[in-house]
Amino acid sequence: MADNKKLVAEITSMDEDFTQWYTDVCIKADLVSYSNIKGCMVIKPAGYAIWELIQKHLDARFKATGVQNAYLPMFIPESLLQKEKDHVEGFAPEVAWVTHGGLEPLAERFCVRPTSETLFCDYYKGEIHSYKDLPQVLNQWCSVVRWEKETRPFLRSREFLWQEGHTAHATFEEAEERTQQMLNVYADFLENDMAIPVIKGQKTDKEKFAGAEATYTVEALMHDGRALQSATSHNFGDGFAKAFGIQYAGKDNQLHYVNQTSWGLTTRTIGAMIMVHGDNSGLVVPPKIAPIQVVVIPIQQKKEGVLEAANKIAESLSAFRVKVDDTDRTPGFKFAEQEMRGIPVRVEIGPKDLEAGKCVLCRRDTREKIECAIEDVPAKMAELLDQIQNDMFQRAKAHLEAHTFAAHNKDEFAENFKETNGFVKAMWCGCRECEDKIKEEFNVTSRCIPFEQENLSDKCVICGQPAKKMVYWGRAY
Amino acid sequence: MADNKKLVAEITSMDEDFTQWYTDVCIKADLVSYSNIKGCMVIKPAGYAIWELIQKHLDARFKATGVQNAYLPMFIPESLLQKEKDHVEGFAPEVAWVTHGGLEPLAERFCVRPTSETLFCDYYKGEIHSYKDLPQVLNQWCSVVRWEKETRPFLRSREFLWQEGHTAHATFEEAEERTQQMLNVYADFLENDMAIPVIKGQKTDKEKFAGAEATYTVEALMHDGRALQSATSHNFGDGFAKAFGIQYAGKDNQLHYVNQTSWGLTTRTIGAMIMVHGDNSGLVVPPKIAPIQVVVIPIQQKKEGVLEAANKIAESLSAFRVKVDDTDRTPGFKFAEQEMRGIPVRVEIGPKDLEAGKCVLCRRDTREKIECAIEDVPAKMAELLDQIQNDMFQRAKAHLEAHTFAAHNKDEFAENFKETNGFVKAMWCGCRECEDKIKEEFNVTSRCIPFEQENLSDKCVICGQPAKKMVYWGRAY
Repeated sequence: MADNKKLVAEITSMDEDFTQWYTDVCIKADLVSYSNIKGCMVIKPAGYAIWELIQKHLDARFKATGVQNAYLPMFIPESLLQKEKDHVEGFAPEVAWVTHGGLEPLAERFCVRPTSETLFCDYYKGEIHSYKDLPQVLNQWCSVVRWEKETRPFLRSREFLWQEGHTAHATFEEAEERTQQMLNVYADFLENDMAIPVIKGQKTDKEKFAGAEATYTVEALMHDGRALQSATSHNFGDGFAKAFGIQYAGKDNQLHYVNQTSWGLTTRTIGAMIMVHGDNSGLVVPPKIAPIQVVVIPIQQKKEGVLEAANKIAESLSAFRVKVDDTDRTPGFKFAEQEMRGIPVRVEIGPKDLEAGKCVLCRRDTREKIECAIEDVPAKMAELLDQIQNDMFQRAKAHLEAHTFAAHNKDEFAENFKETNGFVKAMWCGCRECEDKIKEEFNVTSRCIPFEQENLSDKCVICGQPAKKMVYWGRAY
Repeated sequence: MADNKKLVAEITSMDEDFTQWYTDVCIKADLVSYSNIKGCMVIKPAGYAIWELIQKHLDARFKATGVQNAYLPMFIPESLLQKEKDHVEGFAPEVAWVTHGGLEPLAERFCVRPTSETLFCDYYKGEIHSYKDLPQVLNQWCSVVRWEKETRPFLRSREFLWQEGHTAHATFEEAEERTQQMLNVYADFLENDMAIPVIKGQKTDKEKFAGAEATYTVEALMHDGRALQSATSHNFGDGFAKAFGIQYAGKDNQLHYVNQTSWGLTTRTIGAMIMVHGDNSGLVVPPKIAPIQVVVIPIQQKKEGVLEAANKIAESLSAFRVKVDDTDRTPGFKFAEQEMRGIPVRVEIGPKDLEAGKCVLCRRDTREKIECAIEDVPAKMAELLDQIQNDMFQRAKAHLEAHTFAAHNKDEFAENFKETNGFVKAMWCGCRECEDKIKEEFNVTSRCIPFEQENLSDKCVICGQPAKKMVYWGRAY
């Protein structure tokens, strides 16, 4: 077990230093490595394989709602970025500028896309002429660049991977419907595939996307009680259409501006997965997005029949993503590695098990060990992976609920954020001043105005004026 | 049929102006649109769906040989690009330079990756320590930027999509084996999925990749007789390893440099597909990579039972990628659109067919019409799509063979390139002077030294000195 201890000992405990624990897991589970390009990371095969499964699940959901994929250029000429006033103010301070092509200076500088609203507007202007050309429901999977000062693997990096959907509709109502539909797609994906429970709601005006009429969000709670915005969906109304002149001839033969939306989910979802499910032994990956769902580990593999039996078990599990670890390292090392990488189930099979016609299934999430007859493994595994997926969601949901507090007045609000992190639900008058004050006094931000409202009192916890909405507040990544 | 004529009339005939025909097909088949970013294109849903199928087929082949996907940053610091001398000379004149991050000038400028050898070297230097860390067999799907002066959709654009594989091995022999293995993967994919026959061979020193010891290529022949390099695979030996200091401790406890390879295939493959298979009615897409394989077109769809029958046929074809065109346009328009978009089979079903319990299958490639009992459609379709895939390959192969000429001396060489394009096979002494002379006199380049050599004579067709190799020459895209 010496190897085992060595591998595990290198992770900081999450209770001791959550930030360091997070970084340790990212590195030790082989998800990322730092590159020589400041603020940019290398996504290693174990990390990228998770992203591929996220893409697969999400893309299938998108296509089921009529989304088509496309690819637009990665560069935005400065004049194009500047067409929508709020948008350029939001993004110009954090873009990377290309000034030279080959040996020649460019006549106009380009930025590398931080997001592609302006490019899609430019494209839609050429494509949309009549109501028959609507709706346009496109998405692209790509990388974007935002010149962040402080960076952390997956959570904040200068380049990251994402998908960005951009749609154009005849009416505001249709755009609103698509905006909320995609928010529901994200919530469904996060809860059912990533086992991450979310709060669905609307961003306040202060927190909404640059150029949006309304921004919706799904907010998740990490193990340390901090919030993470996990995906957003924006209704632009006709603001971009007016800035870019995107009009269509309606059935009434009049010209109308289109109404647009955009919605995105990024590689930071992997960060959320780590911080919602991980523990002091490393990653815990939900079965549906685990690149390897089962690892079969032979014990005393040189003993007659053991390796053969391990391979046979793996073959019987061909309906799952399975591998056999037949390397010449010790079983203890292999166990620790399976735990570090968060593989949902390991199967242990040694000479004594083989004699008894059975093996041991060990769950990553609970460490529970289950004896199982070799011939029953495939049926048991299907059941077990479902159980793990479901239990992981339920545990995360219990954690979210246990760290959500109601504050009926300013004292309770202060009390909650003194003690711990978590979500605090509180009534709000709707004014920017109170929102700014909360940020200033407690260093927390409004996470969302949840769709599921409760009436905690009639008054804003800050100013005491009549309350308009209940808001979730928290410290966010 | 007025609509039909109108749609088709907008394409230039390929015999009249092949270049214009190509552009017309790209635009009219809705594959791309020009963007306001000079030299960059928008890949529209119909084009991107083909790329998604190319990715799917090729990625599965890669993974079957042990390739893992990863993602490296899109930026290369200037100092990193400069580490390998030949490489920087090859690429520095055509990269886009980022000089500002947000409002601040960068301490060192970055280029947007034109290819990622230098980034992978930098990464491997940190990952590889012992022979146990080898081989490393990574690939990434991404976009790259090369600041080209003249651009054309898919064939040459400032930004394009591709995959780039980068591997590191203990020995030159292992690297060579991987280099050739991946060339064979490309050839297999191009011939079996894209129905594009290729010549496999090695590039001359003049034409090889900047920094490579050996470059292998698969060369295809377009309908106009011009060649298109369809994928390449490079063996770098230890050149990059020496420049970047990538060493491993061997079993002998000594330090050794690794040996590296890289290999890539780009969206220009879509251009090859257009120019190998297309005709004067538009695209012809091979069934295996056709986003829609079958379109069912109801005739007089308002007549009782017609639309219902069309939908039933489509349901019976759920093993294929199928759609029903039930829009309110004329059948003639729908036929022309199916032809323009290159959908392999259309099914026509009208009131009379319905009465007789049959329908008509119409092949896009040959326009052959086949009557078929409605209940036999699924079985017939499987057979027909296989047949089309196979026939398309055979026709392209016959075209390649009919446009490949043997030149036994300089006069025959000159004669062939006066008359027509195509491949000309000729003996070569192996010297750069003769290669340059051929370029100068005939405006053709060496395409490859094919693996399948023939002995056409003992002398170089240019200088008359003893011949070393038979070479394929041609005019290339």
